[in-house]
Amino acid sequence: MKKLKRSARLVEMTQYLLFRPHQLIPLTTFADRYGAAKSSISEDLAIIKEVFEDEGTGELHTLAGAAGGVKFIPKMGGNRAKEFIDHLCQMLSDPDRILPGGYLYMSDVLGLPNLMNEAGKLFATVFADRAIDVIMTVETKGIPLAYATGAQLNLPVVLVRRDHQVTEGSAVSINYVSGSHKSLHTMTLSRRALKEKSRVLIVDDFMKAGGTIQGMVDLLAEFDATVAGVGVLVESGEVDTEQRLLHDYVSLATLANVDPKVKEITVKPGNYFSSRA
Amino acid sequence: MKKLKRSARLVEMTQYLLFRPHQLIPLTTFADRYGAAKSSISEDLAIIKEVFEDEGTGELHTLAGAAGGVKFIPKMGGNRAKEFIDHLCQMLSDPDRILPGGYLYMSDVLGLPNLMNEAGKLFATVFADRAIDVIMTVETKGIPLAYATGAQLNLPVVLVRRDHQVTEGSAVSINYVSGSHKSLHTMTLSRRALKEKSRVLIVDDFMKAGGTIQGMVDLLAEFDATVAGVGVLVESGEVDTEQRLLHDYVSLATLANVDPKVKEITVKPGNYFSSRA
Repeated sequence: MKKLKRSARLVEMTQYLLFRPHQLIPLTTFADRYGAAKSSISEDLAIIKEVFEDEGTGELHTLAGAAGGVKFIPKMGGNRAKEFIDHLCQMLSDPDRILPGGYLYMSDVLGLPNLMNEAGKLFATVFADRAIDVIMTVETKGIPLAYATGAQLNLPVVLVRRDHQVTEGSAVSINYVSGSHKSLHTMTLSRRALKEKSRVLIVDDFMKAGGTIQGMVDLLAEFDATVAGVGVLVESGEVDTEQRLLHDYVSLATLANVDPKVKEITVKPGNYFSSRA
Repeated sequence: MKKLKRSARLVEMTQYLLFRPHQLIPLTTFADRYGAAKSSISEDLAIIKEVFEDEGTGELHTLAGAAGGVKFIPKMGGNRAKEFIDHLCQMLSDPDRILPGGYLYMSDVLGLPNLMNEAGKLFATVFADRAIDVIMTVETKGIPLAYATGAQLNLPVVLVRRDHQVTEGSAVSINYVSGSHKSLHTMTLSRRALKEKSRVLIVDDFMKAGGTIQGMVDLLAEFDATVAGVGVLVESGEVDTEQRLLHDYVSLATLANVDPKVKEITVKPGNYFSSRA
């Protein structure tokens, strides 16, 4: 136990909470830690709560009673979310991103850890109240986004592989159809990676018709697990609604149009704001 | 501008700094933000600095002068680092991890975002003073570790692929030899992923003789880039020093022995503490 002045205690409690999202911390933890009365701790928490809410950092939920305590729920405020999504759309609209075949180069954007962390905060915001046991993604590009989301929701990440690795032990494999060429692919998940009846939030970097994500959904069925939600960074807007295999998902940006001939890309905000329950 | 009480200002400055590691923040940013005198801001920073240092969260570097300001350098304190490494070794020592062929199942450990973030903090601690432009890893399992390190050092991540993807544009490929079977593999990096003369910190989840990492080093030469450091989560202790292709690296844990017959694994701390410059 260490006696801290209130000013130092506020700094320490702030970082303690920020590093432990979605974890219930009994008030006694703080009281014992700082040798302070619970009433003082409650006053400190009220100050922190107000700043977190004003800043759009998140919410502090206080649970009363013997099993009570405080829980930090990261939630990005609406203004910051809008700014972030606009910034993302602007980055992705750079015509230098157009690759042969009309593909979009996104690796530099996906390579910015702090940008991925912000995107993860958005998914953590929109899925904060869902019952989720684990985040799932398929290698490779969705991985940083899945981890960023998992860190904010305090949940583990399960990684679906394209092929079976010796370091994964026994695994379940399925075939799925994806891409504009309707080509057949395989995905595989280690037997021990996912408990039966898990509720799974699927996260990926890009969705066109949704074949890859539908593949993950099919894989979940093999584990008797269920989909708790789907979040994608960018969805393709060049897909008709009836072509789309998946309708319940959250996207941060929509790639509305890529025109390699005139070197033009149009990126609009995704359904993030309209999808919010 | 918003006028905040000192208590609220301390909470806000704490989170502002924690979210912006390795970024120089002019004192005027805070002074303008809160309508406070620079002297008050300096006093607040002194309080935050003391807590961060006491807690082993990191350092606050204050740079004087017109171009001055404050920079948060995440550094995990020695005690917390030791606790973390012991905890990691203990998790990895579970004999249920042994797979056919003597391989070790680590995907559950690698699937914990907050554990990866802590490991990233260790690499950010040991490499805090090196001149680094970018973090590099090869798909797949080292990715969360590379992003965790990049987030703490405020650096982008460059991802080497096993094969050439249409979404990467033109790329440079090399062959490399790895594994106990000395098998030949290919790795490839997008031309636009890495600027010439970049200083690169290589991060990976596991290193045996170091063939894969040596492959990345060879790939760097193709981009006229240099190695600024190498960090691995786990190194294999079953390699003779003369077999090892690489000698200058930092490891958090050493897999000293896997005995599938008696179902025993020995995991010891890596060279983290002894390697520190």
